[in-house]
Amino acid sequence: MSGIEEQTFCQLDFSKIKNKTGAAETEQVNRPNNRFTAPFGHNPGELSIEAGRYRLLWSPHCPWAHRSVIVRKLLGLEDVISLGTVNPIRSEQGWEFSLDDAGVDPVLGIRYLSEAYFHSDPEYSGRASVPAVADIQTKKVVYNDYLTLTNIFETAWAPFHKKGAPDLYPEHLRKDIDELNDVIYHDINKGVYKCGSADSQEDYEKAYDALFARLDELEQRLASQRYLFGDFISDSDVRLYVSLARFDVIYYTEYKANRNRLIDFPNLWGYARDLYQTPGFGDTTDFEAMKKAQYASGNNPLNIIPKGPDLSGWSTPHHRERLSK
Amino acid sequence: MSGIEEQTFCQLDFSKIKNKTGAAETEQVNRPNNRFTAPFGHNPGELSIEAGRYRLLWSPHCPWAHRSVIVRKLLGLEDVISLGTVNPIRSEQGWEFSLDDAGVDPVLGIRYLSEAYFHSDPEYSGRASVPAVADIQTKKVVYNDYLTLTNIFETAWAPFHKKGAPDLYPEHLRKDIDELNDVIYHDINKGVYKCGSADSQEDYEKAYDALFARLDELEQRLASQRYLFGDFISDSDVRLYVSLARFDVIYYTEYKANRNRLIDFPNLWGYARDLYQTPGFGDTTDFEAMKKAQYASGNNPLNIIPKGPDLSGWSTPHHRERLSK
Repeated sequence: MSGIEEQTFCQLDFSKIKNKTGAAETEQVNRPNNRFTAPFGHNPGELSIEAGRYRLLWSPHCPWAHRSVIVRKLLGLEDVISLGTVNPIRSEQGWEFSLDDAGVDPVLGIRYLSEAYFHSDPEYSGRASVPAVADIQTKKVVYNDYLTLTNIFETAWAPFHKKGAPDLYPEHLRKDIDELNDVIYHDINKGVYKCGSADSQEDYEKAYDALFARLDELEQRLASQRYLFGDFISDSDVRLYVSLARFDVIYYTEYKANRNRLIDFPNLWGYARDLYQTPGFGDTTDFEAMKKAQYASGNNPLNIIPKGPDLSGWSTPHHRERLSK
Repeated sequence: MSGIEEQTFCQLDFSKIKNKTGAAETEQVNRPNNRFTAPFGHNPGELSIEAGRYRLLWSPHCPWAHRSVIVRKLLGLEDVISLGTVNPIRSEQGWEFSLDDAGVDPVLGIRYLSEAYFHSDPEYSGRASVPAVADIQTKKVVYNDYLTLTNIFETAWAPFHKKGAPDLYPEHLRKDIDELNDVIYHDINKGVYKCGSADSQEDYEKAYDALFARLDELEQRLASQRYLFGDFISDSDVRLYVSLARFDVIYYTEYKANRNRLIDFPNLWGYARDLYQTPGFGDTTDFEAMKKAQYASGNNPLNIIPKGPDLSGWSTPHHRERLSK
């Protein structure tokens, strides 16, 4: 199970951390680290909404970060909020900008993500996680709530959306989207981690059953409609997509989420390819980064990265447009 | 990669054994342990061929043992050579008859497989491996050469074959069968272990490429003929089958043999189901034992066994009979 902790801690907080032998270290409780949650807005105490002021920091392997990067692109916020990318191979000092020239983020001038957290709080003791929004002026992390970041981009940042940007979070559907997001979160986004990090056979099977029951349900839902809420892409599609994109390459093999692969669900697989082939999705999907994060970590001393699975299917025709009205 | 060593050492000898951290212990060279190789025959010094004299000892997870059990059944040797089964979960004392009443093999009266090896040689220092043929009178292991055991059953034991038993090793094809067996052995039977226990990315990719190139070749070969040598089952089919039966359940996920699964190869998958549904194959195939051996070992302290993959496809129609002349 090498790397599950690493993947988990790109953002998620579990109450228990496993040590390398798999034994639960119950005393080492990890506190929620999405503590930078001040709202964006125009009132005092809120984070100001300004083009060029913020930098979104991510690793392409991380599903929680990936969804904010997809939404940023779908809404045309690339020139408004810049993007810094850490190496998906986590160093012993944490996430590192070692893919950049001289190993330093060119805008923030930092080598490690943790530096931006320490700029915010010199005594910060949580995980320096992605996604994180840093203020370029102060070089401080100002927002890192992965649960709400896509919604922030979709609402507070609306004045900067590109012309013709999709409405990923339509007002009249927000309750429904939130409800579905919650289900996707518990059973799928986080459900795969529950499979991979279960402490007992019983907990594992419970998570596995919930995961595949939910996938079966969504498989049906997507039989007669192109996307989760009909004929348009919503915030829920982004949240489902990031887990589907990692399913066969990581979760199936490493998290024991192995009843079936994504490619065994005709509708979900067509739907995932449809999104992958939509600008904003496939062009931000880095399968190699997912593998590096999973296999080239400290838990895998030989650092052998699987050649498979065969990913060529992602670019094949999906024929989902026939479901469009 | 929990359990690769265990699986490996149901029989195979590698020159290096990996410790639990994956580092190669180069000094701990494992000598070939198939040292009991005296021929069966009617000459002095040869093992006599007698019904009821021997007991074949195996674990159902082990491909090297499985093939001898398939051949024993295909040839109708069940009443001639009895069968003792160890627990696929290897104990710290090695393979154990803990599935039997009182934890003792009812015929040999031993608790551990190693006892039969020590009866043969009190100073035996190799691995007590399966398959092993024990003499019931002396309770000694007399034969454990996994490479040749199926051929021994097919030739020396011919006088005891059931009426109408298939000729798995026809004299005029032996050279061809041996050659194909050699290829299957290096690229597939042992090839998956080369993937799973490689010390370097380069060695891993070499084994992976050889494995899938060979599977692609056999996929073609099986497009126009029902079995490897035409319209009859041969020793080569048995040897290929035991690896195919373990492919999706173990090798794909645990040995990084993950370009495709067996079920992604239409011909190989139909062929494997065809054999599975033939008496001698499916009824000796124990997927749960394979999982137990892999996951419930000392390397997996939480002992969580994957629920997947979905194995229901093994019983579906294969339509391979249309290839019969």
